[in-house]
Amino acid sequence: MTAQPLRRPEPSAIEDRIAARGLYLPAPVRVPAETVLPFAWARRHRDRVYVSGHGPQAPDGNAAGPFGRVGIEVSPDEARHAARLAMLAVLGTLKRELGDLGRIAAWLRIESFVLSAPGFDRTTGIVGAASELVLDLFGPDIGRHARTAIGVVATPLNSPVVIAAEVALHA
Amino acid sequence: MTAQPLRRPEPSAIEDRIAARGLYLPAPVRVPAETVLPFAWARRHRDRVYVSGHGPQAPDGNAAGPFGRVGIEVSPDEARHAARLAMLAVLGTLKRELGDLGRIAAWLRIESFVLSAPGFDRTTGIVGAASELVLDLFGPDIGRHARTAIGVVATPLNSPVVIAAEVALHA
Amino acid sequence: MTAQPLRRPEPSAIEDRIAARGLYLPAPVRVPAETVLPFAWARRHRDRVYVSGHGPQAPDGNAAGPFGRVGIEVSPDEARHAARLAMLAVLGTLKRELGDLGRIAAWLRIESFVLSAPGFDRTTGIVGAASELVLDLFGPDIGRHARTAIGVVATPLNSPVVIAAEVALHA
Repeated sequence: MTAQPLRRPEPSAIEDRIAARGLYLPAPVRVPAETVLPFAWARRHRDRVYVSGHGPQAPDGNAAGPFGRVGIEVSPDEARHAARLAMLAVLGTLKRELGDLGRIAAWLRIESFVLSAPGFDRTTGIVGAASELVLDLFGPDIGRHARTAIGVVATPLNSPVVIAAEVALHA
Repeated sequence: MTAQPLRRPEPSAIEDRIAARGLYLPAPVRVPAETVLPFAWARRHRDRVYVSGHGPQAPDGNAAGPFGRVGIEVSPDEARHAARLAMLAVLGTLKRELGDLGRIAAWLRIESFVLSAPGFDRTTGIVGAASELVLDLFGPDIGRHARTAIGVVATPLNSPVVIAAEVALHA
Repeated sequence: MTAQPLRRPEPSAIEDRIAARGLYLPAPVRVPAETVLPFAWARRHRDRVYVSGHGPQAPDGNAAGPFGRVGIEVSPDEARHAARLAMLAVLGTLKRELGDLGRIAAWLRIESFVLSAPGFDRTTGIVGAASELVLDLFGPDIGRHARTAIGVVATPLNSPVVIAAEVALHA
């Protein structure tokens, strides 16, 4: 932040807010040594960034538990925490892609997938924790987003929540 | 329609068609008093509108039954009706966002999720009722859309069908 | 390719690569005679093409087996093959829509749905076969894409893998 004072005079207010809330952006996703991921965690094209599905991560980039189905192995409270961690993983990816989260002009869409016990009908509340974080950090104008919150039967690594997103950048 | 005759000389042909078919655009989604939804039913950005996942609604905005899995608690015919109601809920949201459904230049994508019995393999036919409604109301050029029709294990409120969409607006 | 030598002097390198790998673009999806599909396999709007969910297809356009849940009726290796066939079906649709796959400037997003046994946690590896094909054919710049890989409880025709996509075109 001190290196280029003229080009970016203010540190990102978004990252200040993340720190002020005691939250963290995790390190890049760690995958097993033998695994090569043939996709991008974020794909930027012109003024859009498409973000791949992210599960909850620990600060070091490893997948964070608990793992399993919400309503069976994972409680609703644990799932809300997982949703918040998954969104922080999305934000970490966006930070690495963009350099500054302040470049986001508009959240457009959040797609969320909850690893659900059959008949679990409260996916809306679980993913609410992720949506609330976006609104808290970015405010109601930039943070405003459409959303899907669906219960699925399987996720990578049995993550209880997976979140993908599309955002628009300032011109 | 009489209030601003010079600015909008013709009523929306789309809404005329909805009424002519005996259909309705439901009131805004009603949620329990203690529930705050931290997302937008529609997110507009430049020439795009992203529409959140909608389940079937009654005219007053309450969730409309039957609820449950297609192929078990909900019959395929009931599910087709639910798909049509979910699409009308999407249209009601777009009407409130845009003022006039005639502003839609192109349907782009419809994402649909069917709360399915394991192995239910006819999601295509269920969601067909929603796609047919779009084509009937908007015609084959504007109404043309790509689609996903997936069977999921859980939906908000146990809605048998949930529909999300992305549309483009006239410049 | 000989008919318009001045307008398109080189055949599509992408299709050359497909042939060189012994792969094929399948014929259009065959559906039962009584079935009318009220959606488009591809929806183009300005510089974007939205591609509907595709399952694996045989060269003649019929759905290609095996059918069923990955981890039960379908093995992981069979599912990886199915993912590759589903991506070839997507490419066949794009070829018919665009005339030349070389018009694709950027893969943006691949949405994939794996018909999964409960708790199957390796959807990432299954869909990797489709992502790898895109990178192999289009290279790391154009082929770069965000991705979701979710396990679902039902798909059209019990296809083990369904793939949808969004791509951007050259101006």
